[in-house]
Amino acid sequence: MDANKMTRRQLLQRFGAVGGSSLVMGAMGAWDLMGQPSGPRPVMKGPRPDTKVIVLGAGLSGLTVGYELGKLDYDYRVLEARDSVGGLCWTVRRGMQHTEIGGETQVCDFDEGQYINAGAWRIPNRDQGIIGYCKELGVPLQLFVNLSDANYYYEEDPELGSLSGQRVRLREVKADMWGSITELLAKAMDSGQIDAPLSEEDEVLLMGFLVRAGYLDSEDHFYGPPELRGSEDRWDFGSLLRSNFGGRVRSLYAGTGGPDPVFQPIGGMNQIPLAFERAMGHHITFGAEVRSIRQSEQGVRVVYRDTRTGREREETADFCVSCLPMSILKKIDVNFSPEMAEAVGKTEHSSSAKMGLQMKRRFWEEDDGIFGGHLWSSSLQLGEFSYPSNDFYSDKGVLLGYYGRGGQAGLADMRIRDRVEHTLTQASKVHPQMREEFEHAYCVWWDKVPFSEGAYGRTPDAELLGQLSKPDGRVYLGSAGASGRPAWLEGAIQSAWRTVEALHERVSA
Amino acid sequence: MDANKMTRRQLLQRFGAVGGSSLVMGAMGAWDLMGQPSGPRPVMKGPRPDTKVIVLGAGLSGLTVGYELGKLDYDYRVLEARDSVGGLCWTVRRGMQHTEIGGETQVCDFDEGQYINAGAWRIPNRDQGIIGYCKELGVPLQLFVNLSDANYYYEEDPELGSLSGQRVRLREVKADMWGSITELLAKAMDSGQIDAPLSEEDEVLLMGFLVRAGYLDSEDHFYGPPELRGSEDRWDFGSLLRSNFGGRVRSLYAGTGGPDPVFQPIGGMNQIPLAFERAMGHHITFGAEVRSIRQSEQGVRVVYRDTRTGREREETADFCVSCLPMSILKKIDVNFSPEMAEAVGKTEHSSSAKMGLQMKRRFWEEDDGIFGGHLWSSSLQLGEFSYPSNDFYSDKGVLLGYYGRGGQAGLADMRIRDRVEHTLTQASKVHPQMREEFEHAYCVWWDKVPFSEGAYGRTPDAELLGQLSKPDGRVYLGSAGASGRPAWLEGAIQSAWRTVEALHERVSA
Repeated sequence: MDANKMTRRQLLQRFGAVGGSSLVMGAMGAWDLMGQPSGPRPVMKGPRPDTKVIVLGAGLSGLTVGYELGKLDYDYRVLEARDSVGGLCWTVRRGMQHTEIGGETQVCDFDEGQYINAGAWRIPNRDQGIIGYCKELGVPLQLFVNLSDANYYYEEDPELGSLSGQRVRLREVKADMWGSITELLAKAMDSGQIDAPLSEEDEVLLMGFLVRAGYLDSEDHFYGPPELRGSEDRWDFGSLLRSNFGGRVRSLYAGTGGPDPVFQPIGGMNQIPLAFERAMGHHITFGAEVRSIRQSEQGVRVVYRDTRTGREREETADFCVSCLPMSILKKIDVNFSPEMAEAVGKTEHSSSAKMGLQMKRRFWEEDDGIFGGHLWSSSLQLGEFSYPSNDFYSDKGVLLGYYGRGGQAGLADMRIRDRVEHTLTQASKVHPQMREEFEHAYCVWWDKVPFSEGAYGRTPDAELLGQLSKPDGRVYLGSAGASGRPAWLEGAIQSAWRTVEALHERVSA
Repeated sequence: MDANKMTRRQLLQRFGAVGGSSLVMGAMGAWDLMGQPSGPRPVMKGPRPDTKVIVLGAGLSGLTVGYELGKLDYDYRVLEARDSVGGLCWTVRRGMQHTEIGGETQVCDFDEGQYINAGAWRIPNRDQGIIGYCKELGVPLQLFVNLSDANYYYEEDPELGSLSGQRVRLREVKADMWGSITELLAKAMDSGQIDAPLSEEDEVLLMGFLVRAGYLDSEDHFYGPPELRGSEDRWDFGSLLRSNFGGRVRSLYAGTGGPDPVFQPIGGMNQIPLAFERAMGHHITFGAEVRSIRQSEQGVRVVYRDTRTGREREETADFCVSCLPMSILKKIDVNFSPEMAEAVGKTEHSSSAKMGLQMKRRFWEEDDGIFGGHLWSSSLQLGEFSYPSNDFYSDKGVLLGYYGRGGQAGLADMRIRDRVEHTLTQASKVHPQMREEFEHAYCVWWDKVPFSEGAYGRTPDAELLGQLSKPDGRVYLGSAGASGRPAWLEGAIQSAWRTVEALHERVSA
């Protein structure tokens, strides 16, 4: 479409109709797709049920199901294929290892105390379900900096003019965008162009606000970049508009210091599953790889392979709650109803991947004054490159060098060293210190992780979700993938609560 | 002045001339008066000096002087009147006590683990001197939330119309102010009133920015309060303008997430002096109340009273560095030159006071969604009431119920229980939970604290500062009061560095 051939009004209307810019802001859209917060935790009571439940998977949903069943005095057993709890709540530390499906083995050689949250990593305050468990189980939380004015944009795009190939700070964009807006309005007021429904005195106060808020010169009302901006130049306003860097410049923005602060467990995300494990005693069987689920009118029989001996074992119970990833459940032999089998078969999952990069020193803090937040770039093909919000000013640190789709830039098909090479090369365009300071990498491509074979589920449509949320005979699905917020820990909690509530109601009836 | 009798242009010009609103924003103006950051720490070398130095006071400046002298292999001794290090870096915890000068004794009965930073409490990232010592001495830092969109304004003032006596959130002010500004500009563009130097395409992008940034309706360009604002009403724009609540609504604002993040030591501010103490071994004599300083051409003799025995003792050395508060130094018998005696006599100090209030539960987090930051009110006469930035979501917490001038609202002359009563009554207007949840209070009115007799020094004029910065014979002043940033820990560091550098240069010459 040639913009010049439309009338100004048509253009304005057209733009208005799409409600803002349609440029893609970053790699992961999940942040804006958080869905609704949970209600309060259901209050479940009743006589001691003489009922046994098998819970499959010791990720956050399985742990929640087991923990709540335990509080209700159920006899329950959690079967977990790995030798540790957590599932997608995986904090990678020194000595941990995994072998990619059809690929290489990595052993983490980070220093002691260094870590990367390879899966779940941030908890918005609105997610009171998971936060409630952190309080109950004694997992201390700290702020997660989800946005910092010091963070950089970096795009290579001739359309961006002087901005192309430049490191542009959010604080520069904020100051220049608001400065330009307030300057435009102040100038229009100066020349009597504005017909605002304000008293003369209020107009004076308004001008005072514009001058102060936008850092305008108090005399001539021209915008002058403030000291806090960090440099006295200003970016070309037209280029800024075309860049869409202003997409994060809003009166309100969810994130640290904003209306909805974000948190993380001190010491890594897996502090949460570890706290559940401590609270649940010996109810978890590790190394139990589920092979089949057979239900009858009398009960459920789960056959699993003991990964240490290779021998098949079985567990029987009255009910079974699957908190396995849908990607795994799909492949297991279950005598579901045709409707449920079809629904499970239709589920999808994200191919998210993360790469932790241990650095000799926290150059982003020391040299760039960046304390948490992200690097925003589509050109670099790093997804959501991020800086740690923990252990500020300490000696070393682990950057999240890559967080995006596993297949982006052909990375999934590369050897691990080549994925790291890609990341170092690309990130060096913004942080030339990368190669000099790099020490160790660890890659988690979730599609290639045994017992996960994918990251979080993709939001199913409402009909599919309805099917997944219902019990199928004596089998329930309690994982985040069967919730409206599959990409969030809170989805795991919601699904677990729904399941335990329904099961307990049935048993108590 | 009657605004209606001036022309609009006159009004605008007059307003422009004062550069924004002149209403006082809060109790403590120090935040905007931070002064310049320090340069890098001076590099001092030289042969082992056969020189002894007495350092008076184990506050942050005295500790820094001693620590740096120790690294240069000086023979030094720090005399401290209290039985602990820290001075204004005082973190009050269970069991601590002090008796107000001419007044009551308090014993802190907070729970174990609860504390209030009664003096210094926040460290901006720009203050690399103190942050450098935290790194060097292993004091971990965490974010200090100096501003949160969830924070309240509260003013009782008929001029504010519907805002008077209301709890108004910063996020409401931000959304409504920017919403109104962007709406004004968008409406002016719609009716062709704006003559911006932009291409037609850029104008479309500009409109898109206004719609998104200000939460305008994409069709009619009216501002509609966003969900993040927390309530769908909007405040009257004229009242908002008259309130000056918009003073914190700027394109850039120093603070958490902003260009200059702020930090605090994990576990309380006195972790810093304690770390210095550990590093300095047995160079500190506690319970040493300095009575006189006598210098001659040969050396310095300091007489002090041993507070445990009441007996006078003395210490001699080649040089003496006073890191005592000026309020204390003024009263000590020193044979200064007439110029220095006059300068010391002219120094002033802040009468700051703080009150910690332990609460049974963190209702500001649970009920109000406030995680750190302040309550802004001049009507309430509480100064800078603040919420803790540590131990989020834990069971209990200590509010900073009062931080302002000691004499405000007649508080200095009240009994401690009445000061607490004032604070509970006033703060209840914003937080009705205060009385129900209140457990313990601890008041630190610095004017009444023995061995301090005042809080931080008041910025002396340049001439006075010049005099205080010079050695007076064999006596140096190394306290924050003899720096350009007397209200900040960084001032203590700057003054200590200046002193050690000058002394070492003299000795090495």
